[in-house]
Amino acid sequence: MSHSPKPTYMEPKSLKGFRDLLPAQVAVRQQILAIARQEARLGGFQEIATPFLEYSEILLGEGGETDKQVFRFKDHGDRDVALRYDLTMPFARYAAAQRAEISLPFRRLQIGEVFRGEKPQKGRYREFMQCDLDIIGADTLLADAEIIAGLMTILHKATELPMTMKLGHRQILVALIQKFLPVASTSEAQSQVLIALDKLEKIGAAAVSELLCKADGVTKESADQLLAAVGQNFEKTAQLLKSDEVISVEIDRLAKLQNMLAGLRVPKFKIEIDLRIARGLAYYTGVVFETTLDDLQDMGSICSGGRYNQLTSRFSSLEMPGVGGSIGVDRLLAALEELGKVPAQSPSLVFVAVADQSAAAYAFEMVAELRKSGISSEIAVTEQKLGKQLQQANKKNILWVIVIGEQEAQNKVFNCKNMTTGSEDKDLKRTDLIAYFQKHLNLKG
Amino acid sequence: MSHSPKPTYMEPKSLKGFRDLLPAQVAVRQQILAIARQEARLGGFQEIATPFLEYSEILLGEGGETDKQVFRFKDHGDRDVALRYDLTMPFARYAAAQRAEISLPFRRLQIGEVFRGEKPQKGRYREFMQCDLDIIGADTLLADAEIIAGLMTILHKATELPMTMKLGHRQILVALIQKFLPVASTSEAQSQVLIALDKLEKIGAAAVSELLCKADGVTKESADQLLAAVGQNFEKTAQLLKSDEVISVEIDRLAKLQNMLAGLRVPKFKIEIDLRIARGLAYYTGVVFETTLDDLQDMGSICSGGRYNQLTSRFSSLEMPGVGGSIGVDRLLAALEELGKVPAQSPSLVFVAVADQSAAAYAFEMVAELRKSGISSEIAVTEQKLGKQLQQANKKNILWVIVIGEQEAQNKVFNCKNMTTGSEDKDLKRTDLIAYFQKHLNLKG
Repeated sequence: MSHSPKPTYMEPKSLKGFRDLLPAQVAVRQQILAIARQEARLGGFQEIATPFLEYSEILLGEGGETDKQVFRFKDHGDRDVALRYDLTMPFARYAAAQRAEISLPFRRLQIGEVFRGEKPQKGRYREFMQCDLDIIGADTLLADAEIIAGLMTILHKATELPMTMKLGHRQILVALIQKFLPVASTSEAQSQVLIALDKLEKIGAAAVSELLCKADGVTKESADQLLAAVGQNFEKTAQLLKSDEVISVEIDRLAKLQNMLAGLRVPKFKIEIDLRIARGLAYYTGVVFETTLDDLQDMGSICSGGRYNQLTSRFSSLEMPGVGGSIGVDRLLAALEELGKVPAQSPSLVFVAVADQSAAAYAFEMVAELRKSGISSEIAVTEQKLGKQLQQANKKNILWVIVIGEQEAQNKVFNCKNMTTGSEDKDLKRTDLIAYFQKHLNLKG
Repeated sequence: MSHSPKPTYMEPKSLKGFRDLLPAQVAVRQQILAIARQEARLGGFQEIATPFLEYSEILLGEGGETDKQVFRFKDHGDRDVALRYDLTMPFARYAAAQRAEISLPFRRLQIGEVFRGEKPQKGRYREFMQCDLDIIGADTLLADAEIIAGLMTILHKATELPMTMKLGHRQILVALIQKFLPVASTSEAQSQVLIALDKLEKIGAAAVSELLCKADGVTKESADQLLAAVGQNFEKTAQLLKSDEVISVEIDRLAKLQNMLAGLRVPKFKIEIDLRIARGLAYYTGVVFETTLDDLQDMGSICSGGRYNQLTSRFSSLEMPGVGGSIGVDRLLAALEELGKVPAQSPSLVFVAVADQSAAAYAFEMVAELRKSGISSEIAVTEQKLGKQLQQANKKNILWVIVIGEQEAQNKVFNCKNMTTGSEDKDLKRTDLIAYFQKHLNLKG
């Protein structure tokens, strides 16, 4: 090959914020995804896939602060491209591009990695997997409820942990901003206020108040009034805004949504209204939500989303109002790890040691037959001495060990040892291989 | 939000060589992956994951021609990074980085998208999913056999289509090159010859001969002799190289491998030795293989791989010889599509129409209960008139339709219509919901 003279060793390092997953971690992640796919199927959601790379213009402009974190570059054809930072913007493009293939309202599941160049923190990576449920083609209470209920069910089945889902509402929050900070009248100014409010949990009210005061014409008094209003009891807010008919409809809808979700009685799941939930992404237009694990609140939200009614309007005059949410699969995985809920994987059932390589083909056929019958098995592939092979089986905690040598192959027999009891059966007939394990593993005969 | 004045419409286009997958396509892909995961588990393979982005130096330098196709750019921190072009180079880094976490020999499954900026063609995309099986820590016939057997089994179970697996051998091929083109003595020159030979199937012997003649000192006669030698019967090649003891051992191992794989009698699977299989990637050192669908040979190889004994030597002095192969999941999917084997998805079993939104919460609880009992169901989320809602159910071919209005909610009853027979049951008790469907769907009572 092409490396002479011998190179100095390269450090096998990964990029900051990117990580390898070990088998036990992938196993838990796959369990979460299997539950998500199962629940999606039960709710009529269909799984789609979109590319990891898109034209930058497709992704940018709706992400608010997130836009700055996008991995963006010129490809071989000098095209301005970017790695997706969520699954929602690509889905908006998908809905417009595949309009002829989907029937509205469309219930969609999508699972995949997304990329954001933000500061890595606990449970926060630059590459992370999201699992999204969305419904487009309906701006209704039931659509909102279906999405959040689906996500709640998946989260509960995947973790069985106590959680709190907080519901906010972008339009109601903007109405409060307009009331208390009328100087922030442009959508740009409002979006700055939203970004500041989104940091409430992280940096506290005093710091957010300071942030707000940086804008032209915002006084500390008005900023603190806004903060008090968004933090107060929801009924008081309803009173405060009752003269606004449009907002009153939304307030009513949000209250109904909370009731419907609470009515599902998903175990260990609290549903609260909290208008401080702002969400950083610019594209939300109605309900927004975040979910935290009660036992691990500092991990941040493990499932968030909201309503976006204008996202496809960039592509077509056809309105496709949407609502959706993402489970942060890798953050959830990090939480499960921290809570000690990533178990070691169970070993294969049978290990076949090969005492003599002339018997390799005979032993190889045996593992193939075991697997065909659903019995997980590994054959020693190292050509080491028998003792070393048995050490492998031991290290892997494999219960049953078969040793195959020249004689076994010639006589069409096998020996099998139970590594826990130490008991050994000798000269078993090769043709009885499956029956032997079905008997000892209590599988159906 | 931030778009006034109203923008002109943006074309919802994807990048060339990148594509959306519709639900029926994702469903088939998920079936393939489920089979792969199941077979991997039965064979003691453990699934891992590595990042999509790596430092460029980790990925480059071993890919041969592929190196030029890598998506490479500077990230926010001015790091030279690249999207993975296969799962093998990242795995080599993983094996070195996670050395303390894995026990050798290590059987690994990895599934994920990879990226190559090559010319898009039928079944060939710039983003495509691979499903890899590898064993590192053993340079043996049994390790080679385990990998190829595992891949064959997955391919057969996932497609049940007739296939041909061709086995080649990098070292034997290089021995032939050294014999017939001794002027190509550097590894660089040999690698150029390998790249030319890899094009045999695509451009034919005459064109490859011309390519070979471009190198200094290569005559048309010697090029044609090489082409004749790689194309001839394997026994003749064995004769030709029998004086080389090292190569004779490899020839014997390759013949045994073919016998062991043929001995598995995987239905519809032919195993042939064909030394013309060169493979474009520079890192192979022993057996190499490619697999084609007999009914769709122009799709190219749907599963390829080989032995790579030096890949981790860039990172450490510890030798971790490896063998592995990839199923080209997206190419296989393209093949299944072309063969008409991507069926439409089956619809949800029950559709719940909401005749009056005051009954929304009642209807919502019903679908939740249906799903809890494993009965897939959708609720109308559009708030349209009843007729429009029923059109949705019809369009989706949903068999059972429940209509919920104010009265049903008040009286805690429901009506259910079978859309095929037209028969309708009225005023069923709400508490009998699950029993009703268990009876009619022949589910266990």
